Amino acid sequence: MAAQVRREVAERIAQLKQQGQAVQLTAILVGSSPAAEVYAENQARSTGDIGIDYRLLKLPADSSMQQVRTTIEKLNHDATVTGIMLHLPLPSQLDAPVLQHAIDPLKDVEGVSPANIGYVVYGHTLIAPCTALAVIELIKSTGQDLRGVEAVVVGASEIAGKPIALLLTEQMATVTLCHIATHDLSSHTRRGQVLVVAVGKPGLIGPDQVQEGAIVIDVGINRIKLADGSKKTVGDVQFDAVAQKAGYLTPVPGGVGPMTVAMLLKNTLRAAELVRGKMGSS
Amino acid sequence: MAAQVRREVAERIAQLKQQGQAVQLTAILVGSSPAAEVYAENQARSTGDIGIDYRLLKLPADSSMQQVRTTIEKLNHDATVTGIMLHLPLPSQLDAPVLQHAIDPLKDVEGVSPANIGYVVYGHTLIAPCTALAVIELIKSTGQDLRGVEAVVVGASEIAGKPIALLLTEQMATVTLCHIATHDLSSHTRRGQVLVVAVGKPGLIGPDQVQEGAIVIDVGINRIKLADGSKKTVGDVQFDAVAQKAGYLTPVPGGVGPMTVAMLLKNTLRAAELVRGKMGSS
Repeated sequence: MAAQVRREVAERIAQLKQQGQAVQLTAILVGSSPAAEVYAENQARSTGDIGIDYRLLKLPADSSMQQVRTTIEKLNHDATVTGIMLHLPLPSQLDAPVLQHAIDPLKDVEGVSPANIGYVVYGHTLIAPCTALAVIELIKSTGQDLRGVEAVVVGASEIAGKPIALLLTEQMATVTLCHIATHDLSSHTRRGQVLVVAVGKPGLIGPDQVQEGAIVIDVGINRIKLADGSKKTVGDVQFDAVAQKAGYLTPVPGGVGPMTVAMLLKNTLRAAELVRGKMGSS
Repeated sequence: MAAQVRREVAERIAQLKQQGQAVQLTAILVGSSPAAEVYAENQARSTGDIGIDYRLLKLPADSSMQQVRTTIEKLNHDATVTGIMLHLPLPSQLDAPVLQHAIDPLKDVEGVSPANIGYVVYGHTLIAPCTALAVIELIKSTGQDLRGVEAVVVGASEIAGKPIALLLTEQMATVTLCHIATHDLSSHTRRGQVLVVAVGKPGLIGPDQVQEGAIVIDVGINRIKLADGSKKTVGDVQFDAVAQKAGYLTPVPGGVGPMTVAMLLKNTLRAAELVRGKMGSS
């Protein structure tokens, strides 16, 4: 599915290029770490592969709020830049939501600006968060109509659980949002015809917590150490056992992760079309 | 409770005035209707009573998006204006969320700018929507700690149900958001230790839908015609019958309504403090 999305996005970007309209994504990295560098290199490759012009803009680790904000505002006004993203985590002197708010909502390819989150609440979505979009696409691929479905989301984080709950509500599912303070979690998760788990706790959900035939989406990505000392990436769901009971279950790795990357590319295309559309109409 | 909030806000505004810092609310009314005029007159009185300088700015009914946006941007940059609100509904050529997005989040006294809604999602609240704040204040007045409580919200509107669900989640309640597409509504409402009803359907919730001892908040305001032809304002909850079963129940009129007005006044004070704080620090 992710490969299919990438192909479609690449085709549309090629069309835009023929019309002289480049899709340009500028990513801002404040400070650095080996993990961030690897991530940025992967991003340069995945965007380049489908024809997106990618630039990584590195700022010093001790940058002030005002310095980062000024950089963002320049990019907002730069007509050659159609998408902007800010790599997280940021150094501790910087406030992520306030800086994300400085990004023009039309260029906010990650869909993380507070304004874009608010537009989702208003059912007036411009660009939605990539992980939440990936979850919705994966559920829809089963053919399940979400209207009136009992959906249970476990984990109420700002970047995953809450936006997922909002997009499910937008699709007219009846949504229960559970988290660390929820009593009797199993009584909720067993009600879910759709169950989305986004906690970051390996093996949190076993077969007893899942309704027979449910669509289960595992957003968790955890690195665990096996008995022999080697490491392995697993989700929040006990895959083999739950696969016996669920109707559908996404694997980790290879499920929500690649689909989220594909949604970022799709959002980058969408931002370019929104930005060009606005320029065309003004 | 609403009177108590108004007194506290009035005291703080008087202190600010002594320091030469006026609290100024400018309300924008595009076009007009008898209902809107009455509402604006009431607002002029309720704000004036507690020391807020109030101005109603009337724009022609055929104003364009650009004209309203320019008006808002002037108010954003006017240092004498500490709060801005846009009366709804707007004429059909205007797009409410896009114009609300133009209001500086710090001056958005209704807490309806998409950015402010987004900040609520991020648990980074600047100014939250008044109705949702009123609901939280009323629940807290019972002494109920919301952490881990089963909360059920009926009605997923942009101005009431969704922000209420978000603020309840922020308080660490386990929240289920129900709406028109929900199957077997009663099975959900009966789970609610806290039940918030915001639909706009007279008598939707009867005693069979309510858990013994629940805290029930009725956000509905409906005008109904009685058998003798007279009119009456009622909520979404069958008051007399549910009062026998619920632990707490807000009346309509006289419950969420006056508390929402009080929260608008409190937000107007908060906006002034945020705006002055920002000016002081810059």
